Amino acid sequence: MLKCLKTLFAFALLVLAAQFVTGQETEILVTQSASVQVELVSDEIYDEPEAAPIDEATAPVYSSYEEFQASPGYAKFMIDNLWILMAAAMVFIMHLGFATVESGFTQAKNSVNVIYKNVFILATGIITYAVVGFQIMYPGDFNGFFGFGGFGIGFDPADSAGMLTPAYVEEMTIWSDFIFQAMFAATAATIVSGCVTGRIKLPAFMIFGALLVAFSYPITGSWLWGGGWLDQLGFYDFAGSTLVHAVGGFAGLACVLLLGARAGKYENGKVNTIPGHNIPLATVGIFLLWFGWFGFNGGSVLSADPAGVSFVFVNTALAAAAGALAAMIATNLLMHKLDAPMALNGILAGLVGITAGADVVSPTSAVLIGLFAGALVVASIAAFDKLRVDDPVGAISVHGICGVWGTLAVGIFSAEYSFLTQLIGTAAVIGFTFAFSFIVFGAIKYTMGVRVSAEVELGGLDLEEHGNNAYPSFAGVELLSKA
Amino acid sequence: MLKCLKTLFAFALLVLAAQFVTGQETEILVTQSASVQVELVSDEIYDEPEAAPIDEATAPVYSSYEEFQASPGYAKFMIDNLWILMAAAMVFIMHLGFATVESGFTQAKNSVNVIYKNVFILATGIITYAVVGFQIMYPGDFNGFFGFGGFGIGFDPADSAGMLTPAYVEEMTIWSDFIFQAMFAATAATIVSGCVTGRIKLPAFMIFGALLVAFSYPITGSWLWGGGWLDQLGFYDFAGSTLVHAVGGFAGLACVLLLGARAGKYENGKVNTIPGHNIPLATVGIFLLWFGWFGFNGGSVLSADPAGVSFVFVNTALAAAAGALAAMIATNLLMHKLDAPMALNGILAGLVGITAGADVVSPTSAVLIGLFAGALVVASIAAFDKLRVDDPVGAISVHGICGVWGTLAVGIFSAEYSFLTQLIGTAAVIGFTFAFSFIVFGAIKYTMGVRVSAEVELGGLDLEEHGNNAYPSFAGVELLSKA
Amino acid sequence: MLKCLKTLFAFALLVLAAQFVTGQETEILVTQSASVQVELVSDEIYDEPEAAPIDEATAPVYSSYEEFQASPGYAKFMIDNLWILMAAAMVFIMHLGFATVESGFTQAKNSVNVIYKNVFILATGIITYAVVGFQIMYPGDFNGFFGFGGFGIGFDPADSAGMLTPAYVEEMTIWSDFIFQAMFAATAATIVSGCVTGRIKLPAFMIFGALLVAFSYPITGSWLWGGGWLDQLGFYDFAGSTLVHAVGGFAGLACVLLLGARAGKYENGKVNTIPGHNIPLATVGIFLLWFGWFGFNGGSVLSADPAGVSFVFVNTALAAAAGALAAMIATNLLMHKLDAPMALNGILAGLVGITAGADVVSPTSAVLIGLFAGALVVASIAAFDKLRVDDPVGAISVHGICGVWGTLAVGIFSAEYSFLTQLIGTAAVIGFTFAFSFIVFGAIKYTMGVRVSAEVELGGLDLEEHGNNAYPSFAGVELLSKA
Repeated sequence: MLKCLKTLFAFALLVLAAQFVTGQETEILVTQSASVQVELVSDEIYDEPEAAPIDEATAPVYSSYEEFQASPGYAKFMIDNLWILMAAAMVFIMHLGFATVESGFTQAKNSVNVIYKNVFILATGIITYAVVGFQIMYPGDFNGFFGFGGFGIGFDPADSAGMLTPAYVEEMTIWSDFIFQAMFAATAATIVSGCVTGRIKLPAFMIFGALLVAFSYPITGSWLWGGGWLDQLGFYDFAGSTLVHAVGGFAGLACVLLLGARAGKYENGKVNTIPGHNIPLATVGIFLLWFGWFGFNGGSVLSADPAGVSFVFVNTALAAAAGALAAMIATNLLMHKLDAPMALNGILAGLVGITAGADVVSPTSAVLIGLFAGALVVASIAAFDKLRVDDPVGAISVHGICGVWGTLAVGIFSAEYSFLTQLIGTAAVIGFTFAFSFIVFGAIKYTMGVRVSAEVELGGLDLEEHGNNAYPSFAGVELLSKA
Repeated sequence: MLKCLKTLFAFALLVLAAQFVTGQETEILVTQSASVQVELVSDEIYDEPEAAPIDEATAPVYSSYEEFQASPGYAKFMIDNLWILMAAAMVFIMHLGFATVESGFTQAKNSVNVIYKNVFILATGIITYAVVGFQIMYPGDFNGFFGFGGFGIGFDPADSAGMLTPAYVEEMTIWSDFIFQAMFAATAATIVSGCVTGRIKLPAFMIFGALLVAFSYPITGSWLWGGGWLDQLGFYDFAGSTLVHAVGGFAGLACVLLLGARAGKYENGKVNTIPGHNIPLATVGIFLLWFGWFGFNGGSVLSADPAGVSFVFVNTALAAAAGALAAMIATNLLMHKLDAPMALNGILAGLVGITAGADVVSPTSAVLIGLFAGALVVASIAAFDKLRVDDPVGAISVHGICGVWGTLAVGIFSAEYSFLTQLIGTAAVIGFTFAFSFIVFGAIKYTMGVRVSAEVELGGLDLEEHGNNAYPSFAGVELLSKA
Repeated sequence: MLKCLKTLFAFALLVLAAQFVTGQETEILVTQSASVQVELVSDEIYDEPEAAPIDEATAPVYSSYEEFQASPGYAKFMIDNLWILMAAAMVFIMHLGFATVESGFTQAKNSVNVIYKNVFILATGIITYAVVGFQIMYPGDFNGFFGFGGFGIGFDPADSAGMLTPAYVEEMTIWSDFIFQAMFAATAATIVSGCVTGRIKLPAFMIFGALLVAFSYPITGSWLWGGGWLDQLGFYDFAGSTLVHAVGGFAGLACVLLLGARAGKYENGKVNTIPGHNIPLATVGIFLLWFGWFGFNGGSVLSADPAGVSFVFVNTALAAAAGALAAMIATNLLMHKLDAPMALNGILAGLVGITAGADVVSPTSAVLIGLFAGALVVASIAAFDKLRVDDPVGAISVHGICGVWGTLAVGIFSAEYSFLTQLIGTAAVIGFTFAFSFIVFGAIKYTMGVRVSAEVELGGLDLEEHGNNAYPSFAGVELLSKA
């Protein structure tokens, strides 16, 4: 614990040193960036348009979709809409990233289980978001805490010109709006999957995950992105450091507290490493996550505005790179190791960290946010192990802790947003999610149970629960025998 | 067999139950969707423009490409064209998906062979499509059954303004048209690769695959997409449930019937499972296929029309998700298993199923199509095993059977299209492909032979035919020894 | 050596035979293509806009970004800019391609080290490019040999309308310009990583790689793309056959000469094969590189011009396909093998080969360039082994030799460019890079040392230097034991 703090402190010195080297340059950039962003982030570009009420005076109205296609605004709408769809596809591929990171960073004997969970939760997330989630998250006018616009996506066949033109939102059709948001929805539960891997009963995860994505995630989402009370309060979370990542991380924390650590992880006061079985596979996942994050953050501009999207791309890349370097340095200082998995987690930490403020902090700030996130994730993983909170892939630290950091960082690095408001918003979302998760997962625990038997855990979930092996036939060598 | 039917029946009940739960809502959507689609799918948006004769009266004519660049229509053309290129790149990555699914779902000892086949057929597909395929598939005016526009891509250097502007087709240059179609071309043969894996002679596959992509695929393609007799008949296959996927599946069936099952697959009336060697690798492939499918289906809109592409994205995602869930349920009912490979195949089944009608069925219908496809693939794989048709990766079921289902589903879920016409078109394409494949592969069989020796099959194609191991040096442990 | 030459000769005959078969058709295409390209490649479309001085007379000037957003030119700018960003994301994913190819084609015991190096160099490349590289490569007015525009990206907060509109460059914001170029920057050092893998000291690589991407790469880059002396001379290298790939390959050659071969590679005059440990992993990498290359080449059009980008896509795909087929044929002729790794390297060879001229040679020429590259890489790898230059993944041949070939090919297949100028430019860039690398890596060698001990090399860098295993827990079987 002390060592962690020392490392974080050493890292803070490094950041200061870096600032000293780049000198006034840096300070000027940080200072100036505030005014720049005022310009860059004029409301009509960045505010979530689907939450904004349509200005009936200025919004163009078309009597038919064909009329719109012939109008001068059509080309711009095409580009905005196309970018949202491309971004949706890129966020989709993040689910492959999550699946391969979770599988690669854990034991081979549970890989089929990991894949099964991830496929299930992605499919369920998309379907439940279509059935209820989308209209919980974007309920239209509501009390700011909970609203429900009705079942389904909300497409009105009688008003296709209103649903498929700027009369809906200025930049995209209702279908694009839905599919981009739907790709986000399963993410939170996928993060939980990483936290509870290796010892959770499959049906317990399936029920909990489905409820989380169907209800909890869109409810807290509605508070800000749906135009609810946190939006009114001035809270800012650009693409979801808190609303997506910390939600997943703290839901996962609640589950892990109820579930307990994997057998053999903590013995006689010692922390045993249970290494991942396939680091190249995890690497594939981390890089795909980074790739997808360009869509996750870039698409959250909610238009193809050149200044907005390109600025977000730069900040996203810089924070990820800084996160990797900081994690490498911190691991070396703290553990005297050149640890590849930690470097990979540093990339994710930087990405999670920049997600809340990618459009409102300067590139220099993005580097600093990424650097701190990269060091923080190393310290946090060590700290949770001290607390005997067993998080096999480090998802609580990566998504939960760095998600909080990223959201608070908006209050530090952007002059527009209040640190206090950021703190309140983060605490409210995390608090609700943790409580929801603790109650729901607790109810599952005391009814049907959440943990597999010791025998199943030892033998591996793949053979015991699925009757599959992830790698059964590596030529002669029977790799995944029970023994 | 009985069990399969029971499962399909149980599944039909589930669909009914689902309809009961969503109630009238669903029925209204399905009903209304028909009228919606009439609006959504006006001819000028969705019809394959490259097949349509250019309307010389209205098509703008430019004396040079530079003149076009300065014209008001240039921006829209840029977007449409860019989307087709992005879609082409996404379809390209599906070939990595096919290679990794086939490799992961089969034995390690044949992985190098799988990769060699896939690289060969992708490269050959692109080259032969440039040399003959493109102008067989889009021959211009022809008799509706077979035409040939000439060797090469058909670019006329003397008329670059006519080839690179809306004078060619309204939305893209000739190069974009070619590259998007070329990425589809190798798909059919890649599907065959999965069916025949583990025991086919490499030269036999190479010759057969090259002939299939160079001639058979573009001939049946020309019947519909080239403006041939099936197009005249009113047959509809949006992105190729039949024209691409069922073609691959039934070509594969013909080959498997001539090739026989792998050694040890069917013994004493028992079906032995020969499990895939690397489920995470196959998972990478399935997710990449889903990702690429957004380009496969979305690009088949043949423009970046916001309503069209976003609608197709939503239907594609919903069908894939529904397919996964249905396969999970069906496997559980039929085999009492939580089977990850089957869940992954369920995703593909849903995707293949929605491909024919992604632009003309409602989202609710997309879910139902995906659900049935997911159950169907489970039953179909079991049925083919009963019939001792050895299809190592389930490609005949996924692409062949679900391809037929998807094409027929257009006649069920869309009021615009006739079930009978869909049946005729599907039967004609499959019939031609099966006959072509049976004759060509039969000729190869009785001349040079199609099957490796029992010794090579046992030792693995990698060592015996390639002298390579896929995983030779896992530290000390000599994994791929012959024994 | 003789055998290699014979193979290249046999291949040349094959090319001639191919030309004979396609007959006059081909010749006409090649001849005509020259005039076509004059049309296709008018200066305002293809010339690197960031190097061109802004024409103050015609460039529109906006008093604010908001004014620009309301202007008619905004939509076109959005598309161009969006394509550059998408292309940047695609080039990003090439780094995953490099990491998995290097890991898959080498031994399992060094996989963690490979990943660590790749993450480090990607992160460092992005950060150093932001700090110094971008403004070394694009220094504005300079003496043509070395310039430096100042630290940082060069965004002037006081002039956002000048930085984010066509006043900067006609097609993109400064952020897009930076991020696209930044994704290229780490590539050169990543190529080196492949050459030196398995025996280099980690700190030696880190220092050398950082210096290469921070200084050497942008200096030679400025000679052409920054508007320096090679640009004045008329040298042409569209997307970097020489400026990116040959730079990496020849930097790698310098390092390998100083580092020596891996233990056991060359013994008693015999070349021992040290096979890669995971061919499917390498396959994932190769296909991702091909996918990314559509962005690498397509984005280098530096606009979304439909004719330009689609033409480059077609040439890129054709050359890659031709490279694969030629490598398959050449390997079969030279080694009587059906070698999958060589077929995969053939894809890369074709891609590297077409990179210099993708926008200025005809599709027929692209096929010929790819064919020769595919044969060349096979001969080159054999030749370097004869010379006892140990290049574990063949990167010197793929990137260095085929990079030179691709750049010279512009002088052969395009009537616009002089072979002699291409030769001078290539020699100058390679010469500088080789000298820089030899001196810097030599200095590291004679101070801190560049090579791990024989014991570490034998035990594997993963365990010895990182304390990690790439695959530690394959169920019971302790795969990566030292023994």
